[in-house]
Amino acid sequence: MNARIAPGSVRRVACVGAGVIGGGWVAHFLARGYQVTAWDPAADAEDKLARLVEAAWPALTELGLAEGASQQNLTVADSLEQAVAEAEFVQESAPEDLELKRDLLARIDAATPAGVVISSSTSGYPMTDMQQRCTDPQRLVVGHPFNPPYLIPLVEVVGGELSEQWAVDWAAEFFEVAGKHVIKMDDEVPGFIANRLQEAIWREALHMVANGEATVEQLDASITAGPGLRWPLFGPCLTFHLAGGEGGMAHMLDHFGPSLKSPWTRLEAPELTDDLRDRMVRGCEEASGGAAVADMVADRDRAIIEVMRAVDKVKEAR
Amino acid sequence: MNARIAPGSVRRVACVGAGVIGGGWVAHFLARGYQVTAWDPAADAEDKLARLVEAAWPALTELGLAEGASQQNLTVADSLEQAVAEAEFVQESAPEDLELKRDLLARIDAATPAGVVISSSTSGYPMTDMQQRCTDPQRLVVGHPFNPPYLIPLVEVVGGELSEQWAVDWAAEFFEVAGKHVIKMDDEVPGFIANRLQEAIWREALHMVANGEATVEQLDASITAGPGLRWPLFGPCLTFHLAGGEGGMAHMLDHFGPSLKSPWTRLEAPELTDDLRDRMVRGCEEASGGAAVADMVADRDRAIIEVMRAVDKVKEAR
Repeated sequence: MNARIAPGSVRRVACVGAGVIGGGWVAHFLARGYQVTAWDPAADAEDKLARLVEAAWPALTELGLAEGASQQNLTVADSLEQAVAEAEFVQESAPEDLELKRDLLARIDAATPAGVVISSSTSGYPMTDMQQRCTDPQRLVVGHPFNPPYLIPLVEVVGGELSEQWAVDWAAEFFEVAGKHVIKMDDEVPGFIANRLQEAIWREALHMVANGEATVEQLDASITAGPGLRWPLFGPCLTFHLAGGEGGMAHMLDHFGPSLKSPWTRLEAPELTDDLRDRMVRGCEEASGGAAVADMVADRDRAIIEVMRAVDKVKEAR
Repeated sequence: MNARIAPGSVRRVACVGAGVIGGGWVAHFLARGYQVTAWDPAADAEDKLARLVEAAWPALTELGLAEGASQQNLTVADSLEQAVAEAEFVQESAPEDLELKRDLLARIDAATPAGVVISSSTSGYPMTDMQQRCTDPQRLVVGHPFNPPYLIPLVEVVGGELSEQWAVDWAAEFFEVAGKHVIKMDDEVPGFIANRLQEAIWREALHMVANGEATVEQLDASITAGPGLRWPLFGPCLTFHLAGGEGGMAHMLDHFGPSLKSPWTRLEAPELTDDLRDRMVRGCEEASGGAAVADMVADRDRAIIEVMRAVDKVKEAR
C-alpha cells in the first residue's frame, strides 16, 4: 500500500454508472479539472451523459472551472474494466438495487488497481451489505452525494465493517480536495444523515397525499414559502435555537417540548429526557460557536432576504 | 354582518401576545403600514417587543416599507380589551397551551367588535379545539405563520368546525393583501402542512441525537450543505420530480419506490399504490405547469448557485 496516491494528486477518476447521479459526478469531476472515464451499460447512456454534462456546463463555468477543466477530458469506455483500469479513484452510481451493487462493486474491485479507493453513491445501503463479494473490501466506502452532485456540496462518507479507516479518511480528504463538503460518519446508519431527514419529510408528504390532506402543490409551497427559506443558512437545529428567542434551544424545548407529543407528523418523537435536552442545548451552543442569538437572528434575516431575492431572480429570468 | 370591512381596507390590527411570533407579526404589520395595537401580559414584554421591532426594521426597510409605515404606529395597550377594542383584525400569538388559548380566544372574542376576524398563530392546535368557549366562534380561524413572521411569507389558513367559510376566505384575502403567501386548507390536520413536514425532520433529528447517530452540527450541515440548498425554489415533491431525470416523478417512484421500505427514517412510508403513484405524478405535472424537466433542471441549478452565493454573502459580512 506504499504506492497509495495522495488525495491531492489524483488526476484520473472513473465513474461507473452515468445516469442522473453518475452523470452529475462526471460533470463535477470534469469541472474540477479531472480526467474522467465513464461507463454505463445503457444503450443511450453516452448521449444522455453528453446532454447532462452540456446542460450543467454553463452553471459550472459560472461557478468557476478549475484550471484545465474541459468537457474534452471525458472518455466513455466500452467496458467497466476499461473504465477503471487506470483510475486513481472510482465512484459507483448504479441504480439502487442491492444485488446489482454487490455484483458491480465486486467487478469494479477486481478490475481497479490495488490501493485505489472505490466509493459508492448509494442513497442508503450500508457498505457492510455491499462489499461482501469484493476481494479487497477494505478500500470500499460510501460517498453519498446529493443531486445534482456538480452543485450540491454535501458528501456523506462512511465505511462498512470490512472497510479500513485509511480508506474512509482518504475518501473524505479526496472529496474535500475535489470541492465537496464532507460529513464523515463513524457508524453506518441506514440512509446516513441527510437522507434520513429528507426521507422523513418525503414520507410524511406521501402520507398526506395518500390521505387527501394536501396536494403536491401545497406541500411544495409550504416549504418554498416557509421553512425552506431558512434552511440554507441554519439547519433545523439552529433554526429552532433561534425560535427560542433570547433563551435559545433551552427555551425552545421548554416551550415547545410538549408539542412533541402532538400528532403533528406520523413520526413519533423520542422522549425528551433531560439528557436529550442537554445534548440539544449543548449541541446548539457548539454549532453556533457561542454566537449571541440576536446576532444569529440578524444573519438569518439577512440570509432569508438574500435567498428570496436569489429565487426571484431565477423566476424572473424564466 | 353587512358592516364587515373589506380585507383591503383594514388599517388597524391588534396583536395579542408579543413574544417571538407575536412580536414578529407586529413588525410585519408595521412594515406593511398598519396601525398596530399590541398586548402581552409579561412584565418585560414592551421592552422585548421594542427590541424585536428595532432589530427587524433594517431588514424590513431593505425589503421595502409600505407607504406610511413607521415604528411610531405601534401602541402597546394596558389590557387585552383595550388592544382589540378598535381592531379590524386580530392576530393571537400566545404560548402553545390549549387551555390558555381557549380562555384567551374567548376573552378576545368578547372584546373584539362584531364581524372582525380573529386569527390564531397556533403551531398545531385545531381551531375546533380552541374556539369552543367563544360566543361568536364563526369568525375564528387559524393563521399559522413561520418564524420570523416579518420575513417568511407562508401563512396557513384553516377554520374549525364552528368557523364559517366567509371568515376563512376573508382571512386568506387579508393575509394576501398584507403581503403573505397563503395556503388555504379545506380540512383541519394537526400541524397543518409545513409543520408536519418540518416536525418529521425535527423528530428524526432528535432520535438521531438521542441515539448518538449524529451530532447537532452534522444534522445541520447535512441540510445547509445538502437538500436545504434545493428547497427555496422547488419543494420536496418537485425536487424529486427532477431527481427522476427526463422521466420525472414517474421514473423517480419506479426507481426509488422500493427504498420506501428501507429503514431510512423511523417514519414508515405509506404503501406506494398505483393511486398514490398517479397522484404524485399528476401533482408534479400540475405543480410544474407542464414545464420540461430539462428547463426545470436549469432553473434549479441557477437557483442553487444564487442561493449559495446569498449564503456566502451573509457569512462574509459576519
